[in-house]
Amino acid sequence: MTYSISILPGDGIGVEVIDATRPLLDDAAHAGGFELETTRYDWGSERYLEAGSMMPDDAIETLEPYDAILLGAVGHPDIPDHVTLRGMMLPIRKAFDQQVCKRPSVLFDGVESPLRGYDGGDIDFVVYRENTEGEYADAGGHEHRGYPHEVAVQTAVYTRQGTETIVRAAFEAARSREGRLTNVTKSNAQAHGMVFWDEVVEEVSADYPDVTVERLLVDAASMDLVRRPDEFDVLVASNLFGDILTDIGAIVSGSMGMAPSANINVEGHSPSMFEPVHGSAPDIAGRGIANPLATVLSVSMLFDHLGESEVARDIWRAVESQLADADAPRTPDLGGSATTEAVVEDIRARL
Amino acid sequence: MTYSISILPGDGIGVEVIDATRPLLDDAAHAGGFELETTRYDWGSERYLEAGSMMPDDAIETLEPYDAILLGAVGHPDIPDHVTLRGMMLPIRKAFDQQVCKRPSVLFDGVESPLRGYDGGDIDFVVYRENTEGEYADAGGHEHRGYPHEVAVQTAVYTRQGTETIVRAAFEAARSREGRLTNVTKSNAQAHGMVFWDEVVEEVSADYPDVTVERLLVDAASMDLVRRPDEFDVLVASNLFGDILTDIGAIVSGSMGMAPSANINVEGHSPSMFEPVHGSAPDIAGRGIANPLATVLSVSMLFDHLGESEVARDIWRAVESQLADADAPRTPDLGGSATTEAVVEDIRARL
Ligand SMILES: CC(C)[C@H](C(=O)O)[C@@H](O)C(=O)O
Ligand SMILES: CC(C)[C@H](C(=O)O)[C@@H](O)C(=O)O
Repeated sequence: MTYSISILPGDGIGVEVIDATRPLLDDAAHAGGFELETTRYDWGSERYLEAGSMMPDDAIETLEPYDAILLGAVGHPDIPDHVTLRGMMLPIRKAFDQQVCKRPSVLFDGVESPLRGYDGGDIDFVVYRENTEGEYADAGGHEHRGYPHEVAVQTAVYTRQGTETIVRAAFEAARSREGRLTNVTKSNAQAHGMVFWDEVVEEVSADYPDVTVERLLVDAASMDLVRRPDEFDVLVASNLFGDILTDIGAIVSGSMGMAPSANINVEGHSPSMFEPVHGSAPDIAGRGIANPLATVLSVSMLFDHLGESEVARDIWRAVESQLADADAPRTPDLGGSATTEAVVEDIRARL
Repeated sequence: MTYSISILPGDGIGVEVIDATRPLLDDAAHAGGFELETTRYDWGSERYLEAGSMMPDDAIETLEPYDAILLGAVGHPDIPDHVTLRGMMLPIRKAFDQQVCKRPSVLFDGVESPLRGYDGGDIDFVVYRENTEGEYADAGGHEHRGYPHEVAVQTAVYTRQGTETIVRAAFEAARSREGRLTNVTKSNAQAHGMVFWDEVVEEVSADYPDVTVERLLVDAASMDLVRRPDEFDVLVASNLFGDILTDIGAIVSGSMGMAPSANINVEGHSPSMFEPVHGSAPDIAGRGIANPLATVLSVSMLFDHLGESEVARDIWRAVESQLADADAPRTPDLGGSATTEAVVEDIRARL
């Protein structure tokens, strides 16, 4: 069996965590008895500064044949975010119809939560985030620039296909976990898009009588991820709300440096993309101290998606074992002083 | 001097906290040497269930002449939120052009934050939330119901007038505090509305060279309110983002039960409205244990707005003194077993 993986380190610490994690892919292939064909593409902000675009014109065609994409992070202090992100990460999610974004939040044993009273093992939920439309739709405009009646509008677009896809994926996940789904919307204030979303959840729930559905408004949900993160199993939310909830999920689970994600093409006709939730972190880039565990866990999700569940599980367990070991190397975000590479080396030794 | 105040208890614990806090208004008038004319309007969900509408048709005309409005909470378990809220709270904010929503988050001495390492006094920021447009605009639609190509859209509307009003209010607040403003948007994903918002902040900042401006994306800001809430001074955000950030601000400051808010008509031609941030809380309604402090602090903000800053300060200090007193009554959300009324009685005794 041979899998082809395209590797897009991107910018800042994205490059560091991806390059450090690279050897782990070969270890995994060796352990799992499969072959990997990987190609590294140096796309990103440096390219933009030199050539005027984040990716070449044929980037999507280039990536299309791969079985999966591994992405680092995108973003540069000298370039507006809407240029970098809309030039690289977001178009990949859209072009390959990666409608389902899956982001687990786990407080691992040995990791301290910023929340009082929460110990390793207490938090374990997953957010299913709609990933290609909603509030991120490229719809809107800006008129009367500079005049007192200037106005900008931004339109969120929720299709039945997109909404049903993420909602079904979340129900399936809840069924395979503890059977509890929290639907997060803002229907009290957004009577068009969000009320439609609630209707779809209501409808789809008829097919999942074994799943209990709780409804929360996004403000209450954001608060409850701080107040009672141990009570959640699966959450489902729109693109923007999922974005916010997963950052809160990452921090209550100890550090943004350990939050992985999968951007999944459900039909399987185009590659899915795996990436740490964190950004390019210009403030710590270049020092070799970024936490690679979000990338390591994303690699685990990548192999799981490819059907190599044993290898995926072993990588996940290596992370668990490292974090539970008080003597293991840790990056500064976890209170240690180890380098990115030292953490990956230790993971490899545990495999 | 006579002030007229309309009192809208609303639903659930809204009625309990408002009715309990009522005597405090007279104490304040007495102490401050002014007169109060108050009228209580029993509008809300009970009225909706009986008469089919949350408020009478002439509600806005009725409220218009008052100097201020004190609101409890709106929401009922048997009525969809978009019916109750769009029937009562939101139309008041809009009709009286209450464009500036001011919500302080203070971790008072004697209160435990759910965050490790944060003690009373460590958190003290205020969120300026745009309050009448943005993502809450009643713009959007829903087509092809029940068909595979069904789609719903929700349009956020940002006017220059609205955006500039909230941004200037926030800069003014920063100037009167520590001179630091955090602008929260999502410009990397919402290139129309949010990029416009950033432009307005950039422009207005020229008038406030003494204020330092930090830019954060809403996902990062939500995380940072958990990671480093002590570092914020003033935050400015859109309607939806302000809604989310203030709920996180409330919980990291100890309890939703202590978060007050002011919905301000900047021109002063229509009444401003003061309300606790919490909702009607059907789960604890009817038991007399709701925390009245969010309402007490909202009353302080109301008097401050009316120009009675001494009385306002005394009420705020009475709350500080109560919370710092380990023997004072506390409601269950703060780990005590006191009733709503006992807490207010104690505040009155401290005035
Ligand atoms: C960088 C940004 C566009 C992106 C998003 O909002 O989706 C990021 O925050 C994420 O969560 O993957
Ligand atoms: C009840 C709801 C419409 C309201 C809002 O979103 O503004 C509330 O959450 C608030 O924060 O005042």
